[in-house]
Amino acid sequence: MEKLDQLYEGKAKKVFKTSEPETYWIEYKDDATAFNGEKKGKIAGKGTLNNEISAILLSLLKEKGVENHFINRISATEQVVKQVAIIPIEVVVRNIAAGSLTKRLGWEEGKALPCTLVEFYYKNDELGDPFINNDHIEILGLATESDLVYIRKQALTINEILKDFLLRKGIILVDFKLEFGKTPAGDIILADEISPDTCRFWDLRTKEKLDKDRFRRDLGNVEEAYHEILRRIGGRVDV
Amino acid sequence: MEKLDQLYEGKAKKVFKTSEPETYWIEYKDDATAFNGEKKGKIAGKGTLNNEISAILLSLLKEKGVENHFINRISATEQVVKQVAIIPIEVVVRNIAAGSLTKRLGWEEGKALPCTLVEFYYKNDELGDPFINNDHIEILGLATESDLVYIRKQALTINEILKDFLLRKGIILVDFKLEFGKTPAGDIILADEISPDTCRFWDLRTKEKLDKDRFRRDLGNVEEAYHEILRRIGGRVDV
Repeated sequence: MEKLDQLYEGKAKKVFKTSEPETYWIEYKDDATAFNGEKKGKIAGKGTLNNEISAILLSLLKEKGVENHFINRISATEQVVKQVAIIPIEVVVRNIAAGSLTKRLGWEEGKALPCTLVEFYYKNDELGDPFINNDHIEILGLATESDLVYIRKQALTINEILKDFLLRKGIILVDFKLEFGKTPAGDIILADEISPDTCRFWDLRTKEKLDKDRFRRDLGNVEEAYHEILRRIGGRVDV
Repeated sequence: MEKLDQLYEGKAKKVFKTSEPETYWIEYKDDATAFNGEKKGKIAGKGTLNNEISAILLSLLKEKGVENHFINRISATEQVVKQVAIIPIEVVVRNIAAGSLTKRLGWEEGKALPCTLVEFYYKNDELGDPFINNDHIEILGLATESDLVYIRKQALTINEILKDFLLRKGIILVDFKLEFGKTPAGDIILADEISPDTCRFWDLRTKEKLDKDRFRRDLGNVEEAYHEILRRIGGRVDV
């Protein structure tokens, strides 16, 4: 398989066409951004770490029956995936209050939510990825009501699988962001990445943050935290 | 009927107990606030105007079968209503892009929405009345899923009735905010007020704003706009 034209460069990844039909090539970058791109930096080795972490978690989900775009990892920072058109909705699933939810509801960080919460955000950098509801999604034409029912159901299933798996590794899954895409056949499947860039992971015992919040809040030991996640979920730690 | 203890003082109204069972006494004030209380002022005669405008619109809705708290107007600035416990959800219905929606979606003010949009906000001054979704409402315990289905349906019915009525008076109903309450028997009914404080009204021909946006944006002729609304919907204009 050959890597062909670049289709897209995002904040943390590049996506390329390939010589294979319905197959894309993703390159994970070390670039890190936060606060809608206002804070920029690099996390040494992040591309390698997230490529492997995401490969492990997407493979786990596939094993458990959650169809997704991951095909295989082909280098330290690259993986091939199924071609999808990303649905521009960021699907946030929350188990514990953190981040923007603490401001929205005035709840303290760390408070367990009485039930899992799903939020939709419009994936649009210019608008700052605004929080939206099903009606906004309808008038924007981003997805149908039945697509949303399916996406929500999948997001909750993914949460259960990841939460249980991570707990056994001493990691609390606080919240995370998913993106879904449409295959050329029109099926909606999980896409994008699952990594410390897109999840809040806390150490079960110490509640230490093991995710991008270390970068957002200048807590130090950012690479070490990503490494620790990879180590606990069973990845090669010699990256 | 006697006015008894004050139960509540809001930004635009005071609510009192009365000597009658299940009956409250509302006094409309001239005070005007905007931007979550950051801007404060008075609009001369607003209490009188909104008391009458709200009485007319709530009576119209009642005639059309939309149960609500209005009983009758008892003075220039006062009306008696059914006792309800306000559900702390601000229900916003939008026909045309304006206000916060233009920022959220990047849509130009005045753009007609492809379908009517309903938004829920958490009525909480301290948090700045944040925009929320059904999941937030569930974890906050503000209303049940079936309450929300009913409230949404009522809001859309109210929109159709008001939109048609106002159009015949040369007024475009751009958007508006409703509040619902629970009666002692547990029924959910429309409560609060419907006035230029809680609706965006535009002149059909000129698109001139005839609502609180004149106060928010210092457009002048605020009282005159409220007067014009009352005049067009058939109120006494000698207030």
